[in-house]
Amino acid sequence: MADLASNDYLGLSGDPRLVEGAVAAARAWGTGSSGSRLVTGTTALHAELDRRLAAFTGSTAGLVFSSGFLANLGAVTALSGPGTLVVSDQVNHASIVDACRLSRARVAIVPHRDAAAVERALAERDEEHAVVVTDAVFSVDGDLAPLAELHRAARAHGALLVIDEAHALGVVGDGGRGAAHAAGLAGEPDVVLTLTLSKSLASQGGAVLGAPEVVQALLDTGRSFIFDTGLNPPAVGAALAALDVLEADPDLPARARATARRMANLAAGSGLETADPAAAVVPVFLGEPDTAVHAAGICAEHGLRVGCFRPPSVPKGRACLRLTARATVSEADLTRLRAALAEVVHSTGRSLHA
Amino acid sequence: MADLASNDYLGLSGDPRLVEGAVAAARAWGTGSSGSRLVTGTTALHAELDRRLAAFTGSTAGLVFSSGFLANLGAVTALSGPGTLVVSDQVNHASIVDACRLSRARVAIVPHRDAAAVERALAERDEEHAVVVTDAVFSVDGDLAPLAELHRAARAHGALLVIDEAHALGVVGDGGRGAAHAAGLAGEPDVVLTLTLSKSLASQGGAVLGAPEVVQALLDTGRSFIFDTGLNPPAVGAALAALDVLEADPDLPARARATARRMANLAAGSGLETADPAAAVVPVFLGEPDTAVHAAGICAEHGLRVGCFRPPSVPKGRACLRLTARATVSEADLTRLRAALAEVVHSTGRSLHA
Repeated sequence: MADLASNDYLGLSGDPRLVEGAVAAARAWGTGSSGSRLVTGTTALHAELDRRLAAFTGSTAGLVFSSGFLANLGAVTALSGPGTLVVSDQVNHASIVDACRLSRARVAIVPHRDAAAVERALAERDEEHAVVVTDAVFSVDGDLAPLAELHRAARAHGALLVIDEAHALGVVGDGGRGAAHAAGLAGEPDVVLTLTLSKSLASQGGAVLGAPEVVQALLDTGRSFIFDTGLNPPAVGAALAALDVLEADPDLPARARATARRMANLAAGSGLETADPAAAVVPVFLGEPDTAVHAAGICAEHGLRVGCFRPPSVPKGRACLRLTARATVSEADLTRLRAALAEVVHSTGRSLHA
Repeated sequence: MADLASNDYLGLSGDPRLVEGAVAAARAWGTGSSGSRLVTGTTALHAELDRRLAAFTGSTAGLVFSSGFLANLGAVTALSGPGTLVVSDQVNHASIVDACRLSRARVAIVPHRDAAAVERALAERDEEHAVVVTDAVFSVDGDLAPLAELHRAARAHGALLVIDEAHALGVVGDGGRGAAHAAGLAGEPDVVLTLTLSKSLASQGGAVLGAPEVVQALLDTGRSFIFDTGLNPPAVGAALAALDVLEADPDLPARARATARRMANLAAGSGLETADPAAAVVPVFLGEPDTAVHAAGICAEHGLRVGCFRPPSVPKGRACLRLTARATVSEADLTRLRAALAEVVHSTGRSLHA
């Protein structure tokens, strides 16, 4: 079954260079990191990955976590707290939602991609401190946050901007350096990035990148960093190898993006509702949950594994297929996709033009 | 520097069998799992580890998470919620504390190891549902929860008992099957275990084990499971190899426990306050933070890396060294420890007998 569902956007998970990165790390450093990074869990490899991720994204400093989920929990909770306002896009990932809940800050949920609403929330606040948090590329719809506008609003009102690059790193921007880099925000002192190493970098783990003061705050109060075992060395080795691949082949991200646009064009050409993909995620909106499940079944019959998202993961009436464009998707896969989507339209009577 | 600080309790992180487990998994399955376990992130290896962990601990079913921290968040939040009382030991690990905060349940914090207080909280509740959550072995003091009493209280009052085996798995009980198994609670329908794979199993990840209904609740509502990338295959392979080692050498856990007792005896023999270790964690209580830092420095001068815990990680006046007894600690290490602890007593004037 061809995979149009995985988040291994660059098709690197089975790449021999990453496998050898993991193997060498396991042999040199063992299979586990043995403790919190503050006690025994930081190897030279972890420190190298901290530095490499910061350099790759244009940030000043960085800190590797054992997962992207925990990186978001750590970033938002360590940078906010009682007396802080956290402003969060209503479509943000579950890990950001849970981070807001854990933060003990006042949380304002704003409409999707609405920089004006963010600005109003910041301007009307009573709290001295504020944090704006957003996905760079949203996980199901695949659309891009208005990062430049969000940063203007944050700066005008003395807030930090936390950007989750999970679906952007390795896909968006020059050489895959991410959406903040593409928006000219890399290294800004009031910008904090969170990453996952488990999507385009085909490993596991996460990171928080920002000013040295941000890293210090995580070291001092980031509970999901302090009280968690460091990332396992094989995952660190694989992520470092993935960065090597991205630096050796800076056109790889553009190929993933081009494939995503072709997939969106196939969907639109079939008469289905889709969205212009900012990265590698292509939604095909089908409305009711049953229709989406039926469409996913048709794709499976055509040998294509696709994601199928229904409420409560997406809003009511917005059940969809979620296709991901890996750099390794073949012409044959795209031909199969065209046929499958045509059958979806035929079988469900669902078409924009119907 | 000899390591008396790591949580690699069985000394398996560099073991060639675990390294080869990780290597084989990386070659067969790649370096990343590519998505949520509900979409593309479950390989045959993950399903095998789900089953093996359940069988090893005597549980009915299991589900592997990408970290023990996330396993605790998932277990407590999926099994509680509004209309539930969660009763939590005041010394429980930070991940349990954060899980309680995320749960939206009413949370009752009870004194340390106080089964009578747990029973009172359960008896006096208005909520229909209740969950009691406890570390099996506490992370700094190394003492054991009164599991049989807690289970009696939970069962008498219709509550679930969630036991975090992080510091017990691989160390406590017959063959390292954990504290619940040792207490005769394995497989009880109202007992749920959470594990980490990053301590005695020398890998990364976590798991929740229990009745099939528990696993179903996690699949349906466990946000830290559903919205997280599956564990990386090399970590799955290493954990499976660690289970093989434990099954091939069922005396390994007893050797770690015996070393811990020798270390506690050395501390007590030097006149320092310690506690009878239930597993591999040996605290040496020193009172004030400065004294603990000074003592850790003396250990370092003797070539021993030890943990040093100060408020707010431990209660005021209870700053301590945290020694961990790995199965691989040598006689030479113990000789060095004896000399270091003698110098601590001499240098700080701190002795029970002073």
